[in-house]
Amino acid sequence: MDKQLRNSIFHQAKSWILEAGERIRENIDAPRSIETKSNPNDLVTEMDQQTEQFFAEKIKEDYPEHYLLGEEGFGDDIEALDGTVWIVDPIDGTMNFVHQKRNFAISIGIYHDGIGEIGLIYNVMEDVLYSAKRGEGAYKNRMELPTLNKERPLNQSILALNTTWMIPENPHIEHKGMQDLVKKIRSTRSYGSAALEFAFVAEGILDGYLTMTLMPWDFAAGAILVEEVGGVVTQANKQELDLLNKSTVLASRSPIHDEIIDDYVQLKKGKSDS
Amino acid sequence: MDKQLRNSIFHQAKSWILEAGERIRENIDAPRSIETKSNPNDLVTEMDQQTEQFFAEKIKEDYPEHYLLGEEGFGDDIEALDGTVWIVDPIDGTMNFVHQKRNFAISIGIYHDGIGEIGLIYNVMEDVLYSAKRGEGAYKNRMELPTLNKERPLNQSILALNTTWMIPENPHIEHKGMQDLVKKIRSTRSYGSAALEFAFVAEGILDGYLTMTLMPWDFAAGAILVEEVGGVVTQANKQELDLLNKSTVLASRSPIHDEIIDDYVQLKKGKSDS
Repeated sequence: MDKQLRNSIFHQAKSWILEAGERIRENIDAPRSIETKSNPNDLVTEMDQQTEQFFAEKIKEDYPEHYLLGEEGFGDDIEALDGTVWIVDPIDGTMNFVHQKRNFAISIGIYHDGIGEIGLIYNVMEDVLYSAKRGEGAYKNRMELPTLNKERPLNQSILALNTTWMIPENPHIEHKGMQDLVKKIRSTRSYGSAALEFAFVAEGILDGYLTMTLMPWDFAAGAILVEEVGGVVTQANKQELDLLNKSTVLASRSPIHDEIIDDYVQLKKGKSDS
Repeated sequence: MDKQLRNSIFHQAKSWILEAGERIRENIDAPRSIETKSNPNDLVTEMDQQTEQFFAEKIKEDYPEHYLLGEEGFGDDIEALDGTVWIVDPIDGTMNFVHQKRNFAISIGIYHDGIGEIGLIYNVMEDVLYSAKRGEGAYKNRMELPTLNKERPLNQSILALNTTWMIPENPHIEHKGMQDLVKKIRSTRSYGSAALEFAFVAEGILDGYLTMTLMPWDFAAGAILVEEVGGVVTQANKQELDLLNKSTVLASRSPIHDEIIDDYVQLKKGKSDS
């Protein structure tokens, strides 16, 4: 993508994400109807849908040749990443949104012919915008984020991990390896928003984030941010990210990335996309 | 304790905690020497010690008849809770302090003849003060916190839990029960600061917080806050808190408190204080 065009799209996307966030902040205390999708962990709110619709209308109007891949159904039914695709999660961390009224984010990754060009993650209630353009570094608001630490070993690392992966019955990953990983590292954290967990890896306050069941809109922006500060983002089997399907993801500082996968990750084959 | 006296101590303690927090914010980016105590998870910084010393001097000067129980060694060697005792953690969440430069708190619980009178938890980098006086409600800055939800069942609850309790080798609690609890509830979170986790329970953004190895300064303020909004705080075997020794703690909304202990908590006897 042409750098000048990218810059212009970046500024447009940034103004939209800030506007959408302001609307959410203004309405956060309004009563809202919560529908339950397939299970109680998958809450979806009116505001989720309204926010995606907002982006869908803006993109359609200003960039009619672009595509939208989103969670809430206002996007396009795309089967390939040709052209320019906006991959949008209007509210990442809906459970936090419902239970906490904070710790959720709007996530926008913009890809051109499959290459990540722009990543934006907006921590709405904190009014903190993480942003990156390919090859131009990553920012937290106006502060450029430094390159991630290349020295700190795994046993001094803090990882974002889900307690579920410690349980034998989980369908995705062998629990023994995960328990060994917890014993090896310094500590774990869990914040309940994939987008924010990527942003925290990019910021260097988490050393890594391992997860089993992300949709493209959960990681499209985060992957760009983490890579811009020298981190590594792949599927949990070292394969490249798949931006059209649900997948496992490990985002981390580069020196511990392969060590985590080689020594601790054993995926349950054929089940990780169930 | 006389209400007028309590009020006067409250305002004094509040002004000191805000001043101590401001000093930390001003120095957060200064280089600092980090000593390691008994293990790498127990980092202690100069600022930790300076902050406790600040409180020790202030208390000694204004309330020479009061006692201080603190983590860093500037307090009194007390064996009972007679009189007025300030129980202080100058920086709760030192690992977050070191790795994240946020998500840590100053915690002050003030007890008179063993009864919790004043609780203060200051989220330093967010500049958010949680405060409570016995019988007068709890506040987040100037906003009074509502009484905790009494309806929501356990399977719709979010609990703060440490991944370590899911592992068979942990010395404190039977892992099977913890795994069953994780399967039962809606989700888990882990923020890395006990004081903040208590504050989040008091605020209603976590439904409960279960932990195995807290020192009195980790829970002295938090217990007062959670009880002021109708929550229940006990040891994980339902016994009253022990304010002079390391102990297990479950702080939660009242309807799920006994259910968690009865159905999911099985302590490994004789090991939980190891």
